[in-house]
Amino acid sequence: MQYLKELSHGSICFPKGFLAAGMNCGIKMSKKDLALIFSEVPARVTGTFTTNSFAAAPVRWCREIVKKGMARAIIVNSGNANACTGEGGFRDTRKMAKTVAQALNLHQEEVLVSSTGVIGKRLPMETIEMGIQKISKLLSKKGEMDASAAILTTDTFGKTAAVEFSIGKKRVRMGVVAKGAGMIEPHMATLLCYITTDAAIELSALKHALKETVDRSFNCLTVDGDMSTNDSVILMANGMAGNKEILLGSEGYEIFLEALSFVTLKLAKMIAWDGEGATKLVQVRVTGAHTDEEAKKGALAIANSNLFKVSLYSQDPNWGRLMAALGSAKISGIVSEKISVKFNGRFFVKKGKSSGIKLGEARKVMRAKQLDIHVDLGLEKGHAVVWTCDLTHKYVDINM
Amino acid sequence: MQYLKELSHGSICFPKGFLAAGMNCGIKMSKKDLALIFSEVPARVTGTFTTNSFAAAPVRWCREIVKKGMARAIIVNSGNANACTGEGGFRDTRKMAKTVAQALNLHQEEVLVSSTGVIGKRLPMETIEMGIQKISKLLSKKGEMDASAAILTTDTFGKTAAVEFSIGKKRVRMGVVAKGAGMIEPHMATLLCYITTDAAIELSALKHALKETVDRSFNCLTVDGDMSTNDSVILMANGMAGNKEILLGSEGYEIFLEALSFVTLKLAKMIAWDGEGATKLVQVRVTGAHTDEEAKKGALAIANSNLFKVSLYSQDPNWGRLMAALGSAKISGIVSEKISVKFNGRFFVKKGKSSGIKLGEARKVMRAKQLDIHVDLGLEKGHAVVWTCDLTHKYVDINM
Repeated sequence: MQYLKELSHGSICFPKGFLAAGMNCGIKMSKKDLALIFSEVPARVTGTFTTNSFAAAPVRWCREIVKKGMARAIIVNSGNANACTGEGGFRDTRKMAKTVAQALNLHQEEVLVSSTGVIGKRLPMETIEMGIQKISKLLSKKGEMDASAAILTTDTFGKTAAVEFSIGKKRVRMGVVAKGAGMIEPHMATLLCYITTDAAIELSALKHALKETVDRSFNCLTVDGDMSTNDSVILMANGMAGNKEILLGSEGYEIFLEALSFVTLKLAKMIAWDGEGATKLVQVRVTGAHTDEEAKKGALAIANSNLFKVSLYSQDPNWGRLMAALGSAKISGIVSEKISVKFNGRFFVKKGKSSGIKLGEARKVMRAKQLDIHVDLGLEKGHAVVWTCDLTHKYVDINM
Repeated sequence: MQYLKELSHGSICFPKGFLAAGMNCGIKMSKKDLALIFSEVPARVTGTFTTNSFAAAPVRWCREIVKKGMARAIIVNSGNANACTGEGGFRDTRKMAKTVAQALNLHQEEVLVSSTGVIGKRLPMETIEMGIQKISKLLSKKGEMDASAAILTTDTFGKTAAVEFSIGKKRVRMGVVAKGAGMIEPHMATLLCYITTDAAIELSALKHALKETVDRSFNCLTVDGDMSTNDSVILMANGMAGNKEILLGSEGYEIFLEALSFVTLKLAKMIAWDGEGATKLVQVRVTGAHTDEEAKKGALAIANSNLFKVSLYSQDPNWGRLMAALGSAKISGIVSEKISVKFNGRFFVKKGKSSGIKLGEARKVMRAKQLDIHVDLGLEKGHAVVWTCDLTHKYVDINM
């Protein structure tokens, strides 16, 4: 962390050579619904995308672009996911890329596309094409807040971060915007997230770094167990910091990885915090499993239990629901007699039985807005962390 | 079905030789919380139980009894699950069996025990022992309604059924009581369910019949994706109908199986209908998968999607959420272009795209209290059915 400085504000336009814009083009009634991110020079690009079998048209488009490893721009609309729209929907995505390319004098293969919103409806293409004409003229260093706002759906706040670090003697910058509040489950991706950096970095190093950090951040996030058709995390690196190119396995790579870990983890927690209807940010740590994988299975079983998540909402220290969820995860060798559970450092369960904590005390612990739930299985060294939130009346309201 | 007659009322005391009772013994404030089922002669017994790693003490006890294949009585308490209570909890279960045995002049190994309610608290054994003394004197042919009421927790109504059928020239009877409304997920069992019959049936036939019917009924049921530590389905057959003993593979076996299928399926639907906070009974059928197993994976992914279940509650014909849930199930060979979706016989999706049904019409379809959702994957012959309900404000209320 000695190299890393976090900014109190700023995001995707903080790195050199990146511009952005956000506006309402008419997909939504009045809220912003169109965002554009642009690099002044060609940027290396990588991405990770939903594993849903019905990946939306823009996801299929982006997968192809990312294979080539180079891009200049990302166009994002909210309000319509362009998913389950058949080949017509794919043509719409390509048309979006082409329209951006014409407006900015690029090739269409340099333009990534994202969509988020309702599934199964064709995009209002005239509206969007006119919007693209306008937004191309709005690109600026100051456009990042508008872009951040334009990608949101049921989110209650924009999610951004920016950091600075040194590679050799060069100052390197990284910025990020994301959205995501419901339909969030690991594998993949949980959300829309765009990361920009002016680092010069070899493509394979860029790919490795994104995969590694997404596995430890967004893929450890669950709001409601649902997985979207559109989730995308895209990372663009335009090299304008002028650092010596970062190679896989180098010291510079470790620094870059640390920065990327920092921003992805921060954003993942912000998303859990803004989970639809959430009143609590909940970290579930499982330790003492035979393997990390088994620990994650247990942590996700707890984090996805509706019954348990309602008890977090009502601040009821009902650890029985946690145990029932954990017991359903089919973790090898698990025995209740070896299990300890702590909520914010206080034992609720010791060796599978109530720790004897007084109800009043336990209730007080449950009132915290942030809960760290630590479950030790007492077997071996496997461990995992996932983030989630509680399940509330408002979750139902929002999704009605 | 020609052999099968369903009664408009009655349950576990309908078969010859079974008595029951239900009462408040003081675990709960005033609602009934203790049930006893008794066979006047030794009965063959089988059962299927939760696969949760933290199976409660009474489940561990019953597994042992069922291995021996013979029992006389079942004692059930609600209000406390006796789960995650360690060896002390197991001793409590054995004490319950022993107390019943002493009161009714049986061996303790002839007494099955169930508990349902809060996890992690020791049973109030003095209260229960006194209750057992009393309830043993209340056994009667008329006790089945009280027994049915005493096993309930958050259920809003008792779940019972009774049927009559012929094996050779003998009239055979079967009755059932069940409870279950939340914490319901396949494998296993979802609930407490006690089935009595006066059929004479070989033990291996009894075991096969229960396994087969539970797989097609209770194991196809999901309310909230949570799996209890206590779920048990127990089947007792006391032979008092005097029929020729039913052997596996015989004609009589097929008739018995049909009766058992009928009552378990009926109860499974009643439980989905009474899902915590439910306003709709929802049947999700998936056809056209490569295998039945893959079809079930798809059906469960849909039936467990919080997002989709909230849209059922709000009667929003948002099939995009269904597609997103289905797409997350990792079904081999699945492509959106081959998928059709019908709600109560009306096409919402054809070949992966909106069928063009008008919004007004679709909304009208969604208003039905019972929904049959039929998803055809368009691949091969694999199919499955699961039952569930919608996710509502009241689910959150009930579990707060």
